[in-house]
Amino acid sequence: MPMPAAFVAELSSLLGGGWRVDAATRQAHASDDSRRVALPDAVVLPQSREQVVAIVHACRRHRVPLTARGAGTATTGAAVPTAGGIVVSFARMHRILAIRPADRCAVVEPGVRNGDLQAALQAHGLFWPPDPSSFENCTVGGNLATNAGGPRAVKYGATRDNVLGLVAVTGAGELIRVGGAYTKCSSGFDLTRLLVGSEGTLALIVEATVRLAPLPQTQAGLRVFYRDAASAAAAVSRLMAQPAVPAMLEFLDRRSLALLRQNGSDVPDAGAMLLVEADGSLDALPDILAALAAAAEGDGLIDMDVAQDGSARDRLLAARRALSPALRTIAPGKINEDVVVPVSRIPDLVAGVEALAAEFALPIVSFGHAGNGNLHVNILYHPDDADETARARAALLRVFALALRLGGALSGEHGIGLSKQAFMADAFDAATLDAMRAVKNALDPDGILNPGKLLPDPD
Amino acid sequence: MPMPAAFVAELSSLLGGGWRVDAATRQAHASDDSRRVALPDAVVLPQSREQVVAIVHACRRHRVPLTARGAGTATTGAAVPTAGGIVVSFARMHRILAIRPADRCAVVEPGVRNGDLQAALQAHGLFWPPDPSSFENCTVGGNLATNAGGPRAVKYGATRDNVLGLVAVTGAGELIRVGGAYTKCSSGFDLTRLLVGSEGTLALIVEATVRLAPLPQTQAGLRVFYRDAASAAAAVSRLMAQPAVPAMLEFLDRRSLALLRQNGSDVPDAGAMLLVEADGSLDALPDILAALAAAAEGDGLIDMDVAQDGSARDRLLAARRALSPALRTIAPGKINEDVVVPVSRIPDLVAGVEALAAEFALPIVSFGHAGNGNLHVNILYHPDDADETARARAALLRVFALALRLGGALSGEHGIGLSKQAFMADAFDAATLDAMRAVKNALDPDGILNPGKLLPDPD
Repeated sequence: MPMPAAFVAELSSLLGGGWRVDAATRQAHASDDSRRVALPDAVVLPQSREQVVAIVHACRRHRVPLTARGAGTATTGAAVPTAGGIVVSFARMHRILAIRPADRCAVVEPGVRNGDLQAALQAHGLFWPPDPSSFENCTVGGNLATNAGGPRAVKYGATRDNVLGLVAVTGAGELIRVGGAYTKCSSGFDLTRLLVGSEGTLALIVEATVRLAPLPQTQAGLRVFYRDAASAAAAVSRLMAQPAVPAMLEFLDRRSLALLRQNGSDVPDAGAMLLVEADGSLDALPDILAALAAAAEGDGLIDMDVAQDGSARDRLLAARRALSPALRTIAPGKINEDVVVPVSRIPDLVAGVEALAAEFALPIVSFGHAGNGNLHVNILYHPDDADETARARAALLRVFALALRLGGALSGEHGIGLSKQAFMADAFDAATLDAMRAVKNALDPDGILNPGKLLPDPD
Repeated sequence: MPMPAAFVAELSSLLGGGWRVDAATRQAHASDDSRRVALPDAVVLPQSREQVVAIVHACRRHRVPLTARGAGTATTGAAVPTAGGIVVSFARMHRILAIRPADRCAVVEPGVRNGDLQAALQAHGLFWPPDPSSFENCTVGGNLATNAGGPRAVKYGATRDNVLGLVAVTGAGELIRVGGAYTKCSSGFDLTRLLVGSEGTLALIVEATVRLAPLPQTQAGLRVFYRDAASAAAAVSRLMAQPAVPAMLEFLDRRSLALLRQNGSDVPDAGAMLLVEADGSLDALPDILAALAAAAEGDGLIDMDVAQDGSARDRLLAARRALSPALRTIAPGKINEDVVVPVSRIPDLVAGVEALAAEFALPIVSFGHAGNGNLHVNILYHPDDADETARARAALLRVFALALRLGGALSGEHGIGLSKQAFMADAFDAATLDAMRAVKNALDPDGILNPGKLLPDPD
């Protein structure tokens, strides 16, 4: 359906160079890291909240769908404009409006890159906790839309835990202001945390007051190897049950370690590894590290080494980060989902995934943020092999069913988007989905914001 | 308006002994700590979520208002049934359903007392962070309804930060399940945190999965005295800007100290005091305490002493807790509001409140959770003196206006209820209030849940 002429006239006149209908720009805003593709009819690049209000009003009047976009690093298709209409890119709203060290917060526009914010905060001895692996490219707005996490979330929380206030434009075209530069509030409904993770389906965030944490004086990491995944998973429970909270607690399964070895890392042939990081003051760190090492010890432990100095620690993290790209060396196709389970059920999740790999005769590599019960389950296959592709899809359904049966959730940090939307009816009962739809309808009465994402169609 | 006969017949038959219309029961459920009074037509005491669903359905069919109630310790009138109808007491839904140390969570019914939960958790070496001063009496359901805090919130967060999942019955009578026993989630709208702090206006919580923290091995406190409030407030900013987070950071103004001295405490005639508590492992505590002491030092410091051992620390906390009751010795009337400001604006809040005390010729005593920017401002007056009463009300308006001008909020932990409802239009713009009303309407389409609370009537 072509865009109404009056709509085009209105927005092109309002936005000038921020109104783009050329093929190259549309193509550049057609996809995200899910590799799904759908061309928008136009791309708009507002420079102010007033322009965002005007854009939403125009979309509402003309019933044009509107998909908000950060850097397009989402893995779920959340930023892909499958219903057509316009993509609203926040690339030109990328200012850091204020850094307030005394209030441990910063006020930013949604288009600022996570990495650029971190760089600006460093001079103040502060950081913003969300650290997705895409941090150099992804934007704060995208982090807010997906409730992005990362390894640090185990100690510092995910995005939702690190936002204090928002200014946003609802689907009704209303500019709302919720929360502020304070850490405690019992004043009205918490729309701030409702908007976080709503994937652009309730409102467009035009300003965020984000909560900051002081950079720790120092860090150190442990590499701990276990006989099998069950032993490592039991250690995760022990580590999370004692008072010294790790700054990172990553799990890598046997296949992940094989991949690391294959790529030249000096890891032994173990059943699983935990990367355990401590951070804190120079005085306190040895005690924290000792407490973590004590908790990591137990049945099935094979070996433990400490990466105290900078370069050893960097190698540790680089090895972890290299895993995702290395998966492509096993097979060109990868379904990477990030289910969550209660920490105590990680052994069952890992065992269940290993059983599925055997049943479907596909390599499945699991690693991730074990301290949050959040594992990245990578099902590897050859997309040009129809049978393998079908088996991969079937295995994925079973992974979701397993996580839900263990009392978990579909996604810990990637979000739902398109890729997990069909499974929402398994994750939530009909009444809960209806309540979510009612909230959606309350803030986006015409259904113009990112239609067809997150919530499944009613039966 | 009398209750419809069919409604009475239906609920009395459903609930048996849980249906109460006797005068004594109605009287006992007519008020809260705001001292506002409104008699309900009936009190119901469900024993199961199924009964709660049936109650809401009956209320909806017959348009009978319904006010949820925990222990009635709210200070805002939130639990007072001003629209008549029924009070739903959760006194018979008070079970601890599960304590899951490995997942650091507990599953509870809403009627369990905060103190009873803490006692049950102690054996597992765990606690639930919310610690309002009413903790021995107040219920988890009431804590959830108001987003209750307490001194520990500065390190451990308030109620909203310590809940992982909820089962609730919306105003539409639908049983919804959101969140679960995991600490990270990007799966659907976050209705969990939306319901927290909504004061029973969106849904009735029938089960909560609450997040637990490990009991610290040990604690120690500092009493730090300053020349004036501004010096103490500056120290609060320094304390909150360094990495060692205090487990408690309480501010007491000059009048609070005078009151303590009057009641026999050994405090000097200082301009302000900070109570700074550290907690952690036996190994780590000395370093944390040293870091806090270093941050507390600065211009205006008069004296600092350490209450390392148990009894000195107990005296410290007892003195702080004795403050609220002691206020009645100054004047029988007390308006106690709990405004919040950004931490950096505490000096301005304290100075502004001192100026208002002079302008209105009334004693105003300020103390509270400075690490969260959350001060309890107590305006003292004689209720039988009409002029003093009028001045106290006028001063209150100015306190709210001051907090909002400083970028703060009306309430940090008490909530809005009836007492601050009229000020919501000052705290939020019309569009934001409309968005909140739309959410209210989405989950409570007939407006039967706690009508007339929290949100002001539209103009």
